[in-house]
Amino acid sequence: MRFYDLITKKKHGEELTEEEIFFLGRSYVSGEIPDYQMSAFLMAVCWQGMTDREASLLTAAIAESGDTVDLSMFGDRSVDKHSTGGVGDKTTMIVTPIVASLGGCVAKMSGRGLGHTGGTIDKLESIPGFRTSLSREEFISTVERVGVAVIGQSGNLAPLDKKLYALRDVTATVDSVPLITSSVMGKKLAAGSHSIVLDVKYGSGSFMKSPEDASELAEKMVAIGYDRGRQVSALITSMDTPLGHAVGNNLEVKEAIKTLKGEGAADLTEVCLCLATEMIALSMKLDRATARKMCKGAISDGSALRKLEEWIAAQGGDAEYIRNPKLFPVTKHAYEVRASRDGYICSMNTEEIGICASMLGAGRVSKDDVIDHAAGIIIHRKVGDKVSAGEVLATLYTNRDGASEEIAERYLRAVTLSETAPELCPVVLKVISR
Amino acid sequence: MRFYDLITKKKHGEELTEEEIFFLGRSYVSGEIPDYQMSAFLMAVCWQGMTDREASLLTAAIAESGDTVDLSMFGDRSVDKHSTGGVGDKTTMIVTPIVASLGGCVAKMSGRGLGHTGGTIDKLESIPGFRTSLSREEFISTVERVGVAVIGQSGNLAPLDKKLYALRDVTATVDSVPLITSSVMGKKLAAGSHSIVLDVKYGSGSFMKSPEDASELAEKMVAIGYDRGRQVSALITSMDTPLGHAVGNNLEVKEAIKTLKGEGAADLTEVCLCLATEMIALSMKLDRATARKMCKGAISDGSALRKLEEWIAAQGGDAEYIRNPKLFPVTKHAYEVRASRDGYICSMNTEEIGICASMLGAGRVSKDDVIDHAAGIIIHRKVGDKVSAGEVLATLYTNRDGASEEIAERYLRAVTLSETAPELCPVVLKVISR
Repeated sequence: MRFYDLITKKKHGEELTEEEIFFLGRSYVSGEIPDYQMSAFLMAVCWQGMTDREASLLTAAIAESGDTVDLSMFGDRSVDKHSTGGVGDKTTMIVTPIVASLGGCVAKMSGRGLGHTGGTIDKLESIPGFRTSLSREEFISTVERVGVAVIGQSGNLAPLDKKLYALRDVTATVDSVPLITSSVMGKKLAAGSHSIVLDVKYGSGSFMKSPEDASELAEKMVAIGYDRGRQVSALITSMDTPLGHAVGNNLEVKEAIKTLKGEGAADLTEVCLCLATEMIALSMKLDRATARKMCKGAISDGSALRKLEEWIAAQGGDAEYIRNPKLFPVTKHAYEVRASRDGYICSMNTEEIGICASMLGAGRVSKDDVIDHAAGIIIHRKVGDKVSAGEVLATLYTNRDGASEEIAERYLRAVTLSETAPELCPVVLKVISR
Repeated sequence: MRFYDLITKKKHGEELTEEEIFFLGRSYVSGEIPDYQMSAFLMAVCWQGMTDREASLLTAAIAESGDTVDLSMFGDRSVDKHSTGGVGDKTTMIVTPIVASLGGCVAKMSGRGLGHTGGTIDKLESIPGFRTSLSREEFISTVERVGVAVIGQSGNLAPLDKKLYALRDVTATVDSVPLITSSVMGKKLAAGSHSIVLDVKYGSGSFMKSPEDASELAEKMVAIGYDRGRQVSALITSMDTPLGHAVGNNLEVKEAIKTLKGEGAADLTEVCLCLATEMIALSMKLDRATARKMCKGAISDGSALRKLEEWIAAQGGDAEYIRNPKLFPVTKHAYEVRASRDGYICSMNTEEIGICASMLGAGRVSKDDVIDHAAGIIIHRKVGDKVSAGEVLATLYTNRDGASEEIAERYLRAVTLSETAPELCPVVLKVISR
């Protein structure tokens, strides 16, 4: 088999066979297929697309390209979640303790932040002592004991995806539905959970700009999971405004704690409840209404917050910080961004706000940047809010000298005011499952 | 400027600017753009195409990417020809002496054969002593003295094309009209001639399978040449059957000599006359009827054949071989391919016949293969001919032992017989110029 012929086939819109897709995966990981051939193939996929069968096979090829995590000891109760990436998305730190406190088993691998989005691993590392590298045995035994563990992605999980993603990132071939779905689902299959709940975001801060595009992507991912023997649900959620109020690592941990105390922002609480509901419904085989009631109960009776403490401690973190969030370090500078005129906030460029947070020190512009865990933004006013000239829209936290003013201007440009109140869409648009 | 953004632009079907196309050319030759990005771009061009303006700019970028040949000393009389590649195409050895004998100046760079097509340089090297590497000064002075010189492509002519072509060849991105046109015309512009005559072939042995595709390609090339200040004509010729009777290096030289004696095959003679007519019409600013009469005269009065001798001698070749072609070595084996039944030859797979010739030793399967100048095929019966069972269709010439039978079978499979006579199309379908 020659890869050249597979490029030609895809270019002409023909369907690749199972044998061909596994050959492609194997030969690319081994280095027999050079990058310059693969990038031509990837562009041909952007052009011609892939059938559902091809996308499902590519997902399997990605999942099987490296190590896989065996979670069979948890039976059907193992459950994972994945978000397509967003700004201020601290849902993992809220949802997984809820689910674990109710008997679900969450053995989760998360990523680091790059560019305008933050990563759960970076956020967790803002808790002193918290270890995101555990041995396979520690990882599993923590889930067995506590019900939840979250670690960074292991070295040899889905190496095919790692290579493909790095290439897509530099060849303008990221935004292809079959390539996105196989990348996400391939990693999730390798990570071993029986059930998977996806948070597919649309809006200015995400890949998918419209709810229709997000729904299409979600449906494909649910179908692939089903095709590969997993249970999958997907929420379609809005990213037109950052989730909750905090953007930045320990700022988001503090907001997660607050939310588990029942004092969280409405949008953030709703997304977390919906995610936890799906995870409990799938892993415990319960109807949604019952599952949602249980999740709300886990917040109101404090069991989810206690689970957070237990989990943080189990991974070496200082749980005192959870009990007393005032212990978290704060930045040297706090700079208030004020509205220049009266109006309603009708849109916020979430991507731009993520970039502002990165510039304050909360994120990485390039891979080797060191993160300032205390830096970031507290957003006081969001889409739909009425504001007056001079009112504080957000506070910028940074240890960098002299950067705040420029970033404040950038933040202001990311916020659009209008004369009349905008129409608001619900934060969770719908749930897709099968 | 980031090449990533140009990939995105092309992927979305937008037009690149002059600055962007020259940036692309410069940065790819210098190695700043990696192959894996360029191949994604090339596939995006296959997908979205290029506007005429983009193709013309890419042509210019290719032409200006390395050395260019200065033929200004010949004024408007410098004239080049180019064939899109064929099997048994020995037209350069026939046409250039005709044109030179009439006062045209042909300073031509030719290629070597690879795969199923032969190369003029290999054919000329079958003449003992003939040198295809001349210094720039020798090259020009030979054209000044004799009216024609043909050499291999110089090291640094159109290096952008060399790099792009090598990449296209392994990424299934060869068959894009703007990429073909810019490749051909870029080299021709760099080679310096004021007028250019193209032989664009269609049929089983060429890129363009239909006359419509070949015409589209030809029109684009003529337009680009015009846009770049050159005079260009293009013939659309059929490659449904090899041109003339000989396929293989010294076999084709012998056929060229015969054709210049006025004893050539009708199809080959007609293509050569048409090419020479266009070259004379453009370089001498004559109408076609006058030009054609002069070309015919150059054959009938022997002046073209004398010019061939003069040219071969000028480049160090032994002209005695031209005067007495029996001197050329012949192969150890001559194997007759016979018809298995009665019928009319209704089609010949020219590409397959080219491969048969290569297998006999006439061509290269890979770049480092050594060519046997005496090997090849003499085709006795062509499309339209009525044949009887047992009649000799072709003779295979080779020095390789034991290969003939298998190749004869392959040759037979490349020839399709029918009950009724096929409809024949003219070898030269039309001429496109502006």
